[in-house]
Amino acid sequence: MANKVMIVMGSDSDFPIMEGCFKLLKEFGIEFEANVASAHRTPERATELAKNAKSNGFKVIIAAAGLAAHLGGVLAANTTLPVIGVPVKGGALNGVDALYATVQMPTGIPVATVAIDGGTNAAILAVQILALSDDSLADKFASYKANLANSVDKKDKSLKEKIANM
Amino acid sequence: MANKVMIVMGSDSDFPIMEGCFKLLKEFGIEFEANVASAHRTPERATELAKNAKSNGFKVIIAAAGLAAHLGGVLAANTTLPVIGVPVKGGALNGVDALYATVQMPTGIPVATVAIDGGTNAAILAVQILALSDDSLADKFASYKANLANSVDKKDKSLKEKIANM
Amino acid sequence: MANKVMIVMGSDSDFPIMEGCFKLLKEFGIEFEANVASAHRTPERATELAKNAKSNGFKVIIAAAGLAAHLGGVLAANTTLPVIGVPVKGGALNGVDALYATVQMPTGIPVATVAIDGGTNAAILAVQILALSDDSLADKFASYKANLANSVDKKDKSLKEKIANM
Amino acid sequence: MANKVMIVMGSDSDFPIMEGCFKLLKEFGIEFEANVASAHRTPERATELAKNAKSNGFKVIIAAAGLAAHLGGVLAANTTLPVIGVPVKGGALNGVDALYATVQMPTGIPVATVAIDGGTNAAILAVQILALSDDSLADKFASYKANLANSVDKKDKSLKEKIANM
Amino acid sequence: MANKVMIVMGSDSDFPIMEGCFKLLKEFGIEFEANVASAHRTPERATELAKNAKSNGFKVIIAAAGLAAHLGGVLAANTTLPVIGVPVKGGALNGVDALYATVQMPTGIPVATVAIDGGTNAAILAVQILALSDDSLADKFASYKANLANSVDKKDKSLKEKIANM
Amino acid sequence: MANKVMIVMGSDSDFPIMEGCFKLLKEFGIEFEANVASAHRTPERATELAKNAKSNGFKVIIAAAGLAAHLGGVLAANTTLPVIGVPVKGGALNGVDALYATVQMPTGIPVATVAIDGGTNAAILAVQILALSDDSLADKFASYKANLANSVDKKDKSLKEKIANM
Amino acid sequence: MANKVMIVMGSDSDFPIMEGCFKLLKEFGIEFEANVASAHRTPERATELAKNAKSNGFKVIIAAAGLAAHLGGVLAANTTLPVIGVPVKGGALNGVDALYATVQMPTGIPVATVAIDGGTNAAILAVQILALSDDSLADKFASYKANLANSVDKKDKSLKEKIANM
Amino acid sequence: MANKVMIVMGSDSDFPIMEGCFKLLKEFGIEFEANVASAHRTPERATELAKNAKSNGFKVIIAAAGLAAHLGGVLAANTTLPVIGVPVKGGALNGVDALYATVQMPTGIPVATVAIDGGTNAAILAVQILALSDDSLADKFASYKANLANSVDKKDKSLKEKIANM
Repeated sequence: MANKVMIVMGSDSDFPIMEGCFKLLKEFGIEFEANVASAHRTPERATELAKNAKSNGFKVIIAAAGLAAHLGGVLAANTTLPVIGVPVKGGALNGVDALYATVQMPTGIPVATVAIDGGTNAAILAVQILALSDDSLADKFASYKANLANSVDKKDKSLKEKIANM
Repeated sequence: MANKVMIVMGSDSDFPIMEGCFKLLKEFGIEFEANVASAHRTPERATELAKNAKSNGFKVIIAAAGLAAHLGGVLAANTTLPVIGVPVKGGALNGVDALYATVQMPTGIPVATVAIDGGTNAAILAVQILALSDDSLADKFASYKANLANSVDKKDKSLKEKIANM
Repeated sequence: MANKVMIVMGSDSDFPIMEGCFKLLKEFGIEFEANVASAHRTPERATELAKNAKSNGFKVIIAAAGLAAHLGGVLAANTTLPVIGVPVKGGALNGVDALYATVQMPTGIPVATVAIDGGTNAAILAVQILALSDDSLADKFASYKANLANSVDKKDKSLKEKIANM
Repeated sequence: MANKVMIVMGSDSDFPIMEGCFKLLKEFGIEFEANVASAHRTPERATELAKNAKSNGFKVIIAAAGLAAHLGGVLAANTTLPVIGVPVKGGALNGVDALYATVQMPTGIPVATVAIDGGTNAAILAVQILALSDDSLADKFASYKANLANSVDKKDKSLKEKIANM
Repeated sequence: MANKVMIVMGSDSDFPIMEGCFKLLKEFGIEFEANVASAHRTPERATELAKNAKSNGFKVIIAAAGLAAHLGGVLAANTTLPVIGVPVKGGALNGVDALYATVQMPTGIPVATVAIDGGTNAAILAVQILALSDDSLADKFASYKANLANSVDKKDKSLKEKIANM
Repeated sequence: MANKVMIVMGSDSDFPIMEGCFKLLKEFGIEFEANVASAHRTPERATELAKNAKSNGFKVIIAAAGLAAHLGGVLAANTTLPVIGVPVKGGALNGVDALYATVQMPTGIPVATVAIDGGTNAAILAVQILALSDDSLADKFASYKANLANSVDKKDKSLKEKIANM
Repeated sequence: MANKVMIVMGSDSDFPIMEGCFKLLKEFGIEFEANVASAHRTPERATELAKNAKSNGFKVIIAAAGLAAHLGGVLAANTTLPVIGVPVKGGALNGVDALYATVQMPTGIPVATVAIDGGTNAAILAVQILALSDDSLADKFASYKANLANSVDKKDKSLKEKIANM
Repeated sequence: MANKVMIVMGSDSDFPIMEGCFKLLKEFGIEFEANVASAHRTPERATELAKNAKSNGFKVIIAAAGLAAHLGGVLAANTTLPVIGVPVKGGALNGVDALYATVQMPTGIPVATVAIDGGTNAAILAVQILALSDDSLADKFASYKANLANSVDKKDKSLKEKIANM
């Protein structure tokens, strides 16, 4: 079965936060569907998305929301699939509200929470989960991870040059 | 139409927090129904309670929940009735998570939030709302409020005695 | 009796925060009076506003204030009407001070608190309360709520277009 | 004119927090009157206490309250006398709410805030203020302050003994 | 390949926090290995556990740690497997330090964070991930989730009895 | 004896924060001396300023500092005069560090703390203290306080015009 | 020159917090002197201790204090020796105030801060600093660090036994 | 042996935060090597840097990192040298996450933490540590510290001029 990821966002205004998520999934050739749905303004649609996710071939759900970020929890309540939550910074509390509302789930219904505004890491976590039953994806991810070190090496050179020029 | 209040709690273990709520509603002769329902473990039941609340004759809903307290928001998303939220202290964050998750609702779906563990105040707020169209209840509440001053006067005397005996 | 709402703000500089509140009340055809009064600089005026609110035909009071936001509490102390509090972001603490000072009221005197800078939601909550005894308003609000879903649908399309163009 | 201090507490249950305050004022021979009054349950009484404080011969007001601690602000709004605020620990937020609600006063109406549960320090601050126009009190306070060092010296000896016995 | 989960804890004193995790994995018949290893006191052992996890047949790693909880991050840095982090309450900051240190991972290396002290939810999340490629486990989990509703129904009856007896 | 106030600031970069303080003291005709001194960079000078303040004719000390704001405490430790502390917003923690470091003083050595960046209120508090033994200043302050209401009335009119023009 | 460490505590009541510090220094054979001195109650003594520390043969100073913990900063201001700060949990804010007041020092005067109640780690840090010019101490510390791993191994066995007995 | 300091940064984008650190070390003639290495993206390199630091002639390590700032802890776990941690402001939590992740280390492995973004103070602390066995450096540092007072004196004059011109 294909590696399909469903993404649900509380608002399309969070597109910049989630752009890295979309890009990374594309980079890994993972099919995804992105939806705007609100736990509060369109509760039925959010519920339906979650309820039908598995039968529609999705394996992982990623939810991104700010403020009293109930989206991850509402989706998790209505599916047996793993749900990854991205707390979005926004409003007066800078995302602490969204972090607490996403991560502090009661026993029985976890949401796998990543950092505030951590859209790219949500995609990486989805890749890691999907790679458990997809050796080709696992190989790609191993390469990706090895390459992270290269970018650090470049930064190391850049730093040393800056200091030499001080 | 009768003054009927629906109370929804995330767990029956929050009974002590909400006991003052039940007592106050009884004191004011307000009919109420108390339910345990979870936004996460029984999302359908929580949704149904909210969706049918108005047609079942309820006028106000009170939701009490801790941690990532989505209950108030889920109920508010599924009803046009005013929803009062009681953030419950519990877990490592002492109710700050529940406060943020209850009060920081997005535009369109407010939850009327009272203090952490403020079960009695939720009932008082319900009384104030119901009294707007029930003069007899309004009179009772005016008396109740006047009596608050008396209890303060007693405390004032008690304090002065304690100091006299120092 | 008419549906009249009193709004009290600590400063006229909070006008942008409360503009959505005024607009929504107008949209629902609800009469309102907006006042600047300070719990600290004009305590008598704030007290008088609250004390006379009911006899002047008001049914709900909305209070918006920042910092050590005592306004909601002072108004609630002097009326039997329901008081809705809007904590205003401002100063070094970004509105956490205003949130705590508005929501953490002692037993007996609740303030129905909405999100920090949640002026529009305060108006919606007022509408929900007033609609309990005004069927026409209740119908209007049911339509309003149904329309929230439409705006989410538009955002969903917009998101899907953005992704298609990535 | 005599050195008279008015103390106002939100509840007589805060007596243990304020006992050190009463004792210190007695130790310095300062006349005081302690009242229980609530900014929310007895707003008129709180207002009257503050309004008449100066004409009744008081020079300093000390206010102790917890949660959404408006008491200091309400008293300060109604008097020209300096008001000292003691935020009281209590409830889920451990006094952070009371601290913010006491100290974050808007321009024009300061409350001189001491530490959470800092009843004794409120009395010391009152002594320091009164001593500005009372040389005898100033001398007593200078001695008191010198003695603080002695108690530290005793603790130093006690510590050294404990370590010698390790 | 078998469904094997590796659990790494910073200290055996966190056993009560993680007991629910062990029990749930047993209940679902999932093989697991539990280790005490410290990111700081035994960095090599922690690194080795993570590096060899995949080749040793593990599919998911669960890390539980308190204070400056680096364990999840250190394991995630050394494996391509998904790592679930359980921030443990402990010390003066009640687990907020552990939550931030676990969830706020930089881009590239996510840790799937559950609630503070959320050991059981870590196991449930592992089950959800493993069930993606194990239909029998998926069925078991669907039953488990359906049963959560039953326990809520029991609590609902218990609450209604308590209220009837008030 | 003249009403002389000493102001000590941790840095001259805080001038904008304290400008309102200087202006208000001038407005009330109160003589003041402003100093830059650091509890950490010039501890001796800070100590000397405090030790000699009383004999140099000062009656009140105002200390403004940010970050680990020890200045108020260091001055209070070295004088019997009342010390008013202004926590200054600055650095990553937005003044919460300065607030805690200023207000949470141990028993024996209070600092009368005003709001973060509350320079003007520090001056007002100084006026209130000095007015206790200066009837002319007391009269001026009573007028000032009465005028606060006028400015609120103007804002009230401005708000009503804005709404009329919506 | 001998490896002498000065310890300064705000109160002897913090003895249990610092007992691990004393024991570890003894274990490493490092001479130390422990003092109770207060930045606020005995500012001169605190200043003198710091000023004379170097000429009295001390190489490192450890300061432990709670609340508005100025002790580390006051000592650091008066010495060129490295000062290690231990924020002590205590009071309503659980040591967050002490942490901020210790660590957020302005440029020029650092305090090397360890964890809240981290008395033992303060001693270890002192050992690490002293070992830079004492090879024998460095060897002892290398052994100590190696032994940390042993204690983790014991805990690992203990955990595995507990699980086997579940 | 030379006074050599190793600096490790999580990213070269933190250069502005650490520029003061580099400058101060140069000012004191202390040799240093700056590296970019990540506890998460290049864990082996970070480990190697720490493991070899002592044998490569380094005496002190400075680690600067943001978010879930594990870098200081990872380095400290792999060396017996003193490690100084600089929590870097960044992301939604403004460096509180980095502060907690750096300072709240478990017993056995301290990180000497300075203020958020306190790069310069990290260098000063390194100087203080190195000066313990380098009298010439100690003299330089004594002069540096004396000069801090001069800059405060200049600011004092600047303030007095500003006020004279008000």
